[in-house]
Amino acid sequence: MKLTKQTIKERTEHVYDALVVGGGPAGLSAGIYLQRYLLSTLIIDKGKARSFWMRELHNYVGLPPDTSGREVLKQGKDHYLSLDGDYLNAFVESVVDEGDTFAVKVRIGRNNPTYETVRTRYLISASGIIDQLPVLDDMQNVFEYAGHNLHVCLICDGYEMKDQWVGVFGASESSLEVAFPLGWFTHHITVFTNGAFEVGQDLRDRLTAQGYAINEQPIDKFLGENHQMSGVALADGSKVALDAGLVSMGSKYHADYLEGVDLEYKGGNLVTDTMSRTSHPRIFAVGDLKVGMNQVAIAAADGAKAATQIWRDIRRAEGSRRPPAVISNA
Amino acid sequence: MKLTKQTIKERTEHVYDALVVGGGPAGLSAGIYLQRYLLSTLIIDKGKARSFWMRELHNYVGLPPDTSGREVLKQGKDHYLSLDGDYLNAFVESVVDEGDTFAVKVRIGRNNPTYETVRTRYLISASGIIDQLPVLDDMQNVFEYAGHNLHVCLICDGYEMKDQWVGVFGASESSLEVAFPLGWFTHHITVFTNGAFEVGQDLRDRLTAQGYAINEQPIDKFLGENHQMSGVALADGSKVALDAGLVSMGSKYHADYLEGVDLEYKGGNLVTDTMSRTSHPRIFAVGDLKVGMNQVAIAAADGAKAATQIWRDIRRAEGSRRPPAVISNA
Repeated sequence: MKLTKQTIKERTEHVYDALVVGGGPAGLSAGIYLQRYLLSTLIIDKGKARSFWMRELHNYVGLPPDTSGREVLKQGKDHYLSLDGDYLNAFVESVVDEGDTFAVKVRIGRNNPTYETVRTRYLISASGIIDQLPVLDDMQNVFEYAGHNLHVCLICDGYEMKDQWVGVFGASESSLEVAFPLGWFTHHITVFTNGAFEVGQDLRDRLTAQGYAINEQPIDKFLGENHQMSGVALADGSKVALDAGLVSMGSKYHADYLEGVDLEYKGGNLVTDTMSRTSHPRIFAVGDLKVGMNQVAIAAADGAKAATQIWRDIRRAEGSRRPPAVISNA
Repeated sequence: MKLTKQTIKERTEHVYDALVVGGGPAGLSAGIYLQRYLLSTLIIDKGKARSFWMRELHNYVGLPPDTSGREVLKQGKDHYLSLDGDYLNAFVESVVDEGDTFAVKVRIGRNNPTYETVRTRYLISASGIIDQLPVLDDMQNVFEYAGHNLHVCLICDGYEMKDQWVGVFGASESSLEVAFPLGWFTHHITVFTNGAFEVGQDLRDRLTAQGYAINEQPIDKFLGENHQMSGVALADGSKVALDAGLVSMGSKYHADYLEGVDLEYKGGNLVTDTMSRTSHPRIFAVGDLKVGMNQVAIAAADGAKAATQIWRDIRRAEGSRRPPAVISNA
């Protein structure tokens, strides 16, 4: 059931089999599988998953390609709740490993928040990432186009940029490397530094050799209308016309609550085995937080694997929780 | 485009980037990603994927839980065709590794078939498996209930069998082991040998210790109506009432066409790396053919990974296929 500030209090004595941090595609898939394994599950979601911002999904088999991220999230949440899973809109503050259980401290509500601690045997980190966007004086101007034709994912949206005039918006030299695989889809590429960092000679030579332009002016604002970005206005008063943009500025990892737990990372991503288990035997990581491709299809599979492994662990330890057979019918 | 006996002839000089054997969720997901990577793709499907028989999907996040397998397949095929992928209804007879390419021999049509050879640089085996069913004199009696409440997948349908009286239909001693994890969902279990094999003392003792019944009579037929199996009639004239059945008789692997290629298997399944690549650098395996869980969500992810790795391979070898930038717009 959907829990509230009030009803969560009824669960503070309960120990969940699995608590899922994050209600994106990975967390919802895990939750659906966990409930179907007859396990006791709580999903805690702070809202606005990365997929919430996707206008059209494009590449998830089985759904019309114009399905929005929020439709997938709504469908997945309804599905999970129909299986009697617990769901709470809240923010996970911290996780303490108590040996057999984790104590998970949650903050509920934005104004006058309340704090509660819930317990779980297994933890699934499905809290994902969010893309860093160009920082301009007027951020509303950035939000106007982000997720429309100001893309954040080459694998997802390279196809959309085929032969278009594309601006790559980077945050560092290494972030501009995405221009080269983008060159598979289009050769009309300008990389923008927004005046924020230097482009060394080696990268400059390699970009130029491909015919890509380098623009090192601070960006004043994005141009366009109706969510369609048509170019950028620069500090020196010039304008560059563009059909689309690709933001490559890294990501914020939603994993602060794991700070007290010793886990193996690669870059900012959690290392997992083939069943989505981290280096901690009772913590699983699914979706964009873990090493691997950031795709809805991959996230859904991660959730299925984590849930299945948790079920196997618990089943092997407990055997069964169903009422014993008193008499056979054979 | 959807190719025919006639139009496939226009492709016999063409070398595809990737040929996908099988048009189930794994193959369609691969095809969608491949086309979105601007690669030249052919899916060859013989029809009637395992998922074609699924009445309700239940556990694929983003879709209503009553979505049928064939709806997913239709949606995925339409999606793939909308991206201009080639698709052919045919049976793959054999694959010959020619070094840089594979020659793939296909049989088109059931009556008066014609044979063609198409070439591809990469091969994706997505041809899956099909479950073996109990062999009775009247197979129509088995088909009547299979995929309804005569289940074939514990992970998919354990939840459906919660606390029900379930018959497990095995083909060997080891196939009856599924009764123990089924015991997580219900304790009312009778295992049936259909008189086809012996149950040794060890297994007999372990089943009996759980309170599970063992029925070693040949099965005459399944009882029921409107696709709802209600029990079995046995050779000795007795009947056993059941709420559901779980068939555990192994699978037929659709991989005969790979016989001429040296590949690493585990059991009947192809061994793959984290990107779905087999032990052959240009052959990928996705979905139920490979080692791992047989789930639509996993298959969709497999397809995405295989397509992405093939794109990376080709991009690293070729750089780009797009028209070069003549002049920058910056």
